Amino acid sequence: MSRTLTYGMVGGGPGAFIGEAHRKAIALDGSARLAAGCFSRSPEKTRALGEELGLDPERCYADYREMARAEAQREDGIDFVVVVTPNVTHYEICKAFLEAGIHVSCDKPLATDSAQGEELKQLAQEKGLLFMVTYTYTGHVTAKYIRDLIRAGEIGAVRTVMAEYPQGWLYSEDDCGGKQGAWRCDPAQSGRVNCLGDIGTHVENAVATMTGLKIKRLLAKMDVVVPGRKLDDNDQVLVEYEGGATGINWSCQFAIGCDNSLRLRIYGSKGTILWDQERCEEITLIREDGAARTIKRGYKAVTPAAAKYGRLPAGHTEGWLEAMGNLYDSFTQCVAAKQAGTFTEDMIDYPTIDAGIQGLKYVEACLESNEKGNVWVTL
Amino acid sequence: MSRTLTYGMVGGGPGAFIGEAHRKAIALDGSARLAAGCFSRSPEKTRALGEELGLDPERCYADYREMARAEAQREDGIDFVVVVTPNVTHYEICKAFLEAGIHVSCDKPLATDSAQGEELKQLAQEKGLLFMVTYTYTGHVTAKYIRDLIRAGEIGAVRTVMAEYPQGWLYSEDDCGGKQGAWRCDPAQSGRVNCLGDIGTHVENAVATMTGLKIKRLLAKMDVVVPGRKLDDNDQVLVEYEGGATGINWSCQFAIGCDNSLRLRIYGSKGTILWDQERCEEITLIREDGAARTIKRGYKAVTPAAAKYGRLPAGHTEGWLEAMGNLYDSFTQCVAAKQAGTFTEDMIDYPTIDAGIQGLKYVEACLESNEKGNVWVTL
Amino acid sequence: MSRTLTYGMVGGGPGAFIGEAHRKAIALDGSARLAAGCFSRSPEKTRALGEELGLDPERCYADYREMARAEAQREDGIDFVVVVTPNVTHYEICKAFLEAGIHVSCDKPLATDSAQGEELKQLAQEKGLLFMVTYTYTGHVTAKYIRDLIRAGEIGAVRTVMAEYPQGWLYSEDDCGGKQGAWRCDPAQSGRVNCLGDIGTHVENAVATMTGLKIKRLLAKMDVVVPGRKLDDNDQVLVEYEGGATGINWSCQFAIGCDNSLRLRIYGSKGTILWDQERCEEITLIREDGAARTIKRGYKAVTPAAAKYGRLPAGHTEGWLEAMGNLYDSFTQCVAAKQAGTFTEDMIDYPTIDAGIQGLKYVEACLESNEKGNVWVTL
Amino acid sequence: MSRTLTYGMVGGGPGAFIGEAHRKAIALDGSARLAAGCFSRSPEKTRALGEELGLDPERCYADYREMARAEAQREDGIDFVVVVTPNVTHYEICKAFLEAGIHVSCDKPLATDSAQGEELKQLAQEKGLLFMVTYTYTGHVTAKYIRDLIRAGEIGAVRTVMAEYPQGWLYSEDDCGGKQGAWRCDPAQSGRVNCLGDIGTHVENAVATMTGLKIKRLLAKMDVVVPGRKLDDNDQVLVEYEGGATGINWSCQFAIGCDNSLRLRIYGSKGTILWDQERCEEITLIREDGAARTIKRGYKAVTPAAAKYGRLPAGHTEGWLEAMGNLYDSFTQCVAAKQAGTFTEDMIDYPTIDAGIQGLKYVEACLESNEKGNVWVTL
Repeated sequence: MSRTLTYGMVGGGPGAFIGEAHRKAIALDGSARLAAGCFSRSPEKTRALGEELGLDPERCYADYREMARAEAQREDGIDFVVVVTPNVTHYEICKAFLEAGIHVSCDKPLATDSAQGEELKQLAQEKGLLFMVTYTYTGHVTAKYIRDLIRAGEIGAVRTVMAEYPQGWLYSEDDCGGKQGAWRCDPAQSGRVNCLGDIGTHVENAVATMTGLKIKRLLAKMDVVVPGRKLDDNDQVLVEYEGGATGINWSCQFAIGCDNSLRLRIYGSKGTILWDQERCEEITLIREDGAARTIKRGYKAVTPAAAKYGRLPAGHTEGWLEAMGNLYDSFTQCVAAKQAGTFTEDMIDYPTIDAGIQGLKYVEACLESNEKGNVWVTL
Repeated sequence: MSRTLTYGMVGGGPGAFIGEAHRKAIALDGSARLAAGCFSRSPEKTRALGEELGLDPERCYADYREMARAEAQREDGIDFVVVVTPNVTHYEICKAFLEAGIHVSCDKPLATDSAQGEELKQLAQEKGLLFMVTYTYTGHVTAKYIRDLIRAGEIGAVRTVMAEYPQGWLYSEDDCGGKQGAWRCDPAQSGRVNCLGDIGTHVENAVATMTGLKIKRLLAKMDVVVPGRKLDDNDQVLVEYEGGATGINWSCQFAIGCDNSLRLRIYGSKGTILWDQERCEEITLIREDGAARTIKRGYKAVTPAAAKYGRLPAGHTEGWLEAMGNLYDSFTQCVAAKQAGTFTEDMIDYPTIDAGIQGLKYVEACLESNEKGNVWVTL
Repeated sequence: MSRTLTYGMVGGGPGAFIGEAHRKAIALDGSARLAAGCFSRSPEKTRALGEELGLDPERCYADYREMARAEAQREDGIDFVVVVTPNVTHYEICKAFLEAGIHVSCDKPLATDSAQGEELKQLAQEKGLLFMVTYTYTGHVTAKYIRDLIRAGEIGAVRTVMAEYPQGWLYSEDDCGGKQGAWRCDPAQSGRVNCLGDIGTHVENAVATMTGLKIKRLLAKMDVVVPGRKLDDNDQVLVEYEGGATGINWSCQFAIGCDNSLRLRIYGSKGTILWDQERCEEITLIREDGAARTIKRGYKAVTPAAAKYGRLPAGHTEGWLEAMGNLYDSFTQCVAAKQAGTFTEDMIDYPTIDAGIQGLKYVEACLESNEKGNVWVTL
Repeated sequence: MSRTLTYGMVGGGPGAFIGEAHRKAIALDGSARLAAGCFSRSPEKTRALGEELGLDPERCYADYREMARAEAQREDGIDFVVVVTPNVTHYEICKAFLEAGIHVSCDKPLATDSAQGEELKQLAQEKGLLFMVTYTYTGHVTAKYIRDLIRAGEIGAVRTVMAEYPQGWLYSEDDCGGKQGAWRCDPAQSGRVNCLGDIGTHVENAVATMTGLKIKRLLAKMDVVVPGRKLDDNDQVLVEYEGGATGINWSCQFAIGCDNSLRLRIYGSKGTILWDQERCEEITLIREDGAARTIKRGYKAVTPAAAKYGRLPAGHTEGWLEAMGNLYDSFTQCVAAKQAGTFTEDMIDYPTIDAGIQGLKYVEACLESNEKGNVWVTL
């Protein structure tokens, strides 16, 4: 690659976990260099962080719209923007950068409803721009390996998928978990959904990405359990997939002892695959003999399309930042290829805006099912 | 105890897994001695097995009704009967022995519907007889320990219970799993239900026994998945308990790699308890600090009411037969106390006919929910 | 089999863990019936326990020598004796029964030195009697399966064996662990060795039985660690086997958190086998691809010579008593075959007196090595 | 910090695993910026990689001595050098940079013998320079947490430490593991030692760092096991620490199924700590009640001095690169403080040259013990 790409960030100010995580994930492989930012609503904070991060003060913007405009006009303007602001602002910000002709990487959820998502998709298509939605977990080498195993028919036809993502950090009625928790418990900031939007959509995306299954219809029960909560904190979703497979998606925020326990158990006609993102370095593959095989990232068995993302030999553990980094590895390669005129669709190995829209439709269908008394809703 | 109790067995002929298991579980602690039997529909097989087991040939019966009558009249007649025949015959056999005034231990399911169960209960009450339904898994020391922890409020109020019992042995469409599998796949022998009755009721019983929760209503999806099956082999049940807790009960017979994976995850307002019957020697207890504590049978932390059933020091593993043996330890103590006139209700530490009836009502409610299109059914 | 064998027991009085365990293990499969006993030095205690166990009072003996004589003369005399007394008495008691022509099952250690062991072996051979030393752990189905895998060359040539047996129950300097602990810490009762004789010999036996390796020489470090102890409570043994393999055997009694953690890791030129007796229902087999396969008792992969001892399907856990029961299953079959004149050496599938002698020689060599300053001692 | 530090690298050319790992670990947190390099013996390769990494061509050096001289003279010269060349060259390269007045981070082993190490230490002291030896594994947050727990007396006095580092990648006699393996098996490149120097020293360092124990004497058995090998590939070391604790250190390169299995089990008078670097996100802490507590990075229980290195919430896994990054976080802070004149010794939270020298002495003592027939050697 002749030159390192540059990117800008909207959001990710001091103390914002996810913004710093994106920066670290990109830095890890040096796949792009931060060159501009609008990190905070406070211009002072933006400037201070920009200085700390070595940015040209000129490219520390008080306003994201100004940033979009200015960067689009610069000869050395950013190649893509990373949007890591609170959820309700994603749509407007992404729109501004797309209109300015800048590729977008947006944290999930993409927007507050699927109509917004479709509009962004339309806009990206018109402008010929790439759009990544950072569902981090499918970036794990093992997640890609599972996708390849299932595509290759290694466990036969998928029959049922037990998928879940329990967390425990919001178990207490005393608080809503500090800064991170507060907005998630606040309808004004989170919209109509909390747990399902925050982590339930990761479940939906993980199943879709690894199994390739498409949801036909679902029946959701979205409960507000912890006293004082206003939005769902426990979501149970029965799913029927096209082709006849079924599944249960569960997400929860008060499961004491669970940190970030996104876990899939995929049962097929010829075998089973188990995956736990907190043990992201390995998968368990069970064939008809019943023996559970633990296969680790770095082993020869791992398919080349997955293995190529590994940085270290087996046993030298990679983790969450590496998964995020893998998304950016593919995304930046695609951005560079776009610029070089060599891009083809099959190069895409990251979650696109379609995954983001699918997540929004999933939430909308769950809300409808729940509001109607837990009835089946067709997607 | 002045004399060893004696028991008779109906069912449990050559090759019948469950009958032999009951015999071994009772022999383990010597809590009763086999003295009579009607092991098979074939009198020859009954006689042959009786001889092998050292029975008096006179007490090897061709017919269970005759056995009930004859044993009731003998001065040294059996103290209780163990019924381990195919499910559809339980009701008639139990009835015959109750009418003859003999205490009953019956394998689950108790009967084919709850009306039969209620009738048996009525009969047992009239006759002043004890009736155990052998839900083996709640016999584990760790299951009793969990019951005690929850009763004592150690994890606060239970909020949600994720319970499951996947097995894999009936995954193949080529066969129905041999002798054991055949009748489970055959409506004529199994009635309207397969997986849910066979293992789903263990899930219901385990949750009820350990948490003390009572089901208010449920919504069930009972699927026939493996091609060629006629009855359910994958059951997903959403549950609402009295008091507001919720849960999911899942049972499945085609989950390759799962053998006998009855597992409970109980999330409370102050902690979490994890239990896996295949790791029956330990529980995981998580308090608000998030640290997962593995506590083993044999440790001082285990409550006396649970610990008293242990036979061996921690690390000398006990298993499934010991769990069954624990049920019989309590049951035979109660039978002996009945005979000695010292029996009181609080001595009961085994699953009674009420648990059996509850299981049948659970199945009936699930069938109704499923047939009506997965709607809520109140119990 | 035309009749059930009968056995007598020396030791195993009230509160004695190991005697009751032997009785339960034998009762489990009904492979023999207890018919005589000298359970305690106190005739009263023997009589009381005999009554509880349903023995003929005549066959409750005050003295084991009298028991040996009397039982040998009875037409219905016991077929074998089970010796479960404190270690220092094993030799005299076994000798008495062998001289009376009665087969012997003796708890380990066989005797206090290998010379005694050789004498007993000589005597048993002269009398044509069977002699089992109850190394329980090699009775596990999975232990036998590992033996078969290694014999079949499944992991190639064994290169190194990491074997260990840490326990934690004697970690405190405040006590020596109650009744069980007291004699183990007392040279007068235990002889020159504590930890190594009690659990270190299980390590030696487990390695020998599963791998077939014979020790060529060893270097031992036997430490007295807990303040107040008089005998070894931590033993580190470097081992060289005939044929060039090496290994480390470690046993310890103050490893807090370890209950009964006998564990083998066997590294061969083509694969690895892991075994943990506290997870006795499974083995881990790793081939050159590195994938760790968990194979459970009850799976088709298990060799017939091992699988035949299983009582329950996979997932219905068996444990320590079943392992002990497996030893008695083979032993009683051999005793019956002896009586029927059909016995052949290849029927033996239990630890014989040779294993007992080997254990004593192992201890003697370790003591010699340790006393000489941790030097190599050839066996 | 007013400006980002810059560093140079010697070694780490195309395909060299460890050099790229250092670069990624530093980039992750942006704690320094690569500004100069002598990546390969081939000037072409150095230039090409320098270009790829965005270096000024002037600062891509054909010779490390020239680099040391030139960088020392530049106003914007590198703040420290990272030495990641083959082991035998470490001494000369480190010396050159120390003489030029440049701080050094050197991969382990520091040198080929401890005399060289002492000389480098002397030189660093004279020049007032910092010197890190990158024992990566002690950089894990959990390793630091264990250090703090033991210092605080949480498990009482350490009694015995079972430490090990088995790998499997060199199990085959067919090859020596490709490029990585070849030089490790070649005395000309590796010197007198292979496995013990490569991974055995990590064991020594991990025990020393986490427990604070100092080796008094040791007895080593260094075996050449795989046919065709010329240097040790299996090392068993008995250790006595000052104060009376003991331990076993085991390292192995042919343990099929082990990837990078550095593992410590630390048994104290009041508790036990278990650590497995492949599960580096958690520790197991066992107190006198025997319950095994799993505590994860990110939990409140983790001591502040350890927790401060974490980047992500619990459950968002960090791994090997983060551990390396943690070393550089401390090292670069110390370098910056040196420049700012605010440095104090207690700021050091990385392995210094003393750790490197200790590793060399450990290897030398093991070699002596082994050559003399596995006798005790005092350190």
